[in-house]
Amino acid sequence: MNRILVRSDELVDGTRATLEDGRAEHIRSVLRSSLGDTLRVGIINGPPGTARVVELAEGPETRVTLECTFEAQAPARPRVDVVLALPRPKVLRRLWSQLAALGVDRLWLTNAAKVERSYFDTHWLQPAGYTPLLVEGAAQASDTQLPQVEVHRSFRRLVEDVLGTPRVGLEQRVVAHPSAGPPLVRLPVGAGQRIVLAVGPEGGWNAFELDLLAAHGFAPAQLGPRILRSDTACVALVSLAHALLD
Amino acid sequence: MNRILVRSDELVDGTRATLEDGRAEHIRSVLRSSLGDTLRVGIINGPPGTARVVELAEGPETRVTLECTFEAQAPARPRVDVVLALPRPKVLRRLWSQLAALGVDRLWLTNAAKVERSYFDTHWLQPAGYTPLLVEGAAQASDTQLPQVEVHRSFRRLVEDVLGTPRVGLEQRVVAHPSAGPPLVRLPVGAGQRIVLAVGPEGGWNAFELDLLAAHGFAPAQLGPRILRSDTACVALVSLAHALLD
Repeated sequence: MNRILVRSDELVDGTRATLEDGRAEHIRSVLRSSLGDTLRVGIINGPPGTARVVELAEGPETRVTLECTFEAQAPARPRVDVVLALPRPKVLRRLWSQLAALGVDRLWLTNAAKVERSYFDTHWLQPAGYTPLLVEGAAQASDTQLPQVEVHRSFRRLVEDVLGTPRVGLEQRVVAHPSAGPPLVRLPVGAGQRIVLAVGPEGGWNAFELDLLAAHGFAPAQLGPRILRSDTACVALVSLAHALLD
Repeated sequence: MNRILVRSDELVDGTRATLEDGRAEHIRSVLRSSLGDTLRVGIINGPPGTARVVELAEGPETRVTLECTFEAQAPARPRVDVVLALPRPKVLRRLWSQLAALGVDRLWLTNAAKVERSYFDTHWLQPAGYTPLLVEGAAQASDTQLPQVEVHRSFRRLVEDVLGTPRVGLEQRVVAHPSAGPPLVRLPVGAGQRIVLAVGPEGGWNAFELDLLAAHGFAPAQLGPRILRSDTACVALVSLAHALLD
């Protein structure tokens, strides 16, 4: 954890948080903080800040109280959105913290022809399952903001009704497809633009899905000839998108 | 598996392989191949090819015999090398298949000030532990070649004696460092060049290590302001390096 994140409802008088879980243990045994030390903190989906350790009680359970000072505003949200065909539960579980660490604004998880229906039943698709993993990723990256997650069982409704037509000049929509289109790194991205990435299932998007994406402004781009597992592909694509925007 | 990989010592008469392990099961239940079907195959660290299924026996154990035709030559090796400060065993375990899938020519695992000594004791650092994971990654990417792995307990000896001075004009040496140097994606990489990436431990390289790398031609470049876990950083950096070379 490169930043200790707290929920706003954990704050007393808006500034004081008493932690008794893994974060307290992390402050004691990994950061090896002492009374009076200063730490980086942040409110989840709110502003970052710094905190002074005002209580540090060891015992069967470590308890740490932080007196926080927050900045006035939350940082800007990442400029990368991801449409992701739901991967299998084991891969999904690994992806949450990595996507939060890399920085994703909106994450739409969706069905596709090659997504198995049973994937939608996993615990890792429930907010109670994935939120701690998103917090872990944001804390790793020293960010405070979590991706906004939506699950869409109808790919068509997601693309037609939710994504709709692209905001020309403001965003670049890209569908990653092996050996189609220019290399992703050569895409022209204007200053201040956003990138919306569509990442397919292990077996790829089918023709209907590719046509629907194309009709809604998603241009094909490739990551090279190698076929990657969807978590590796997703990390590679999101980091490339950020590299293009920076 | 997008390519079924066999060891050269599994081939009878150089063309015939009988499989009774996970590969046979994969051919039967994932690829759903039938007798006479054609598959993509390859010899580990050798040429790719195609194979006809000439025997497919179900039973308590699936047995598949392939009659293979191989190309004359192995494909070109990837043009990305990685110097990686040994990550903790759990992260290392996850990285093997991903690095093989992304394509790494030489992988030097090394000690660093912020690497814990105990990390060197893991099973995942033994060839018997990691080779199956490298094969899994290469098979996923439809490649035949595995990274060449070396483990160096002395960082200094690795840099001074093994890496030595850079081959000017032939390779670009880069050390990933948060907020130092230009963004990695802006590095000028000439046609036909290689990239050698140095990826530090979770806590970063220390000043001595950075100086030694700099003295041996490693230019700092950054991936942005976010602090990534070393497996996420490694996947991001290797995919960016490939994107720059393509």
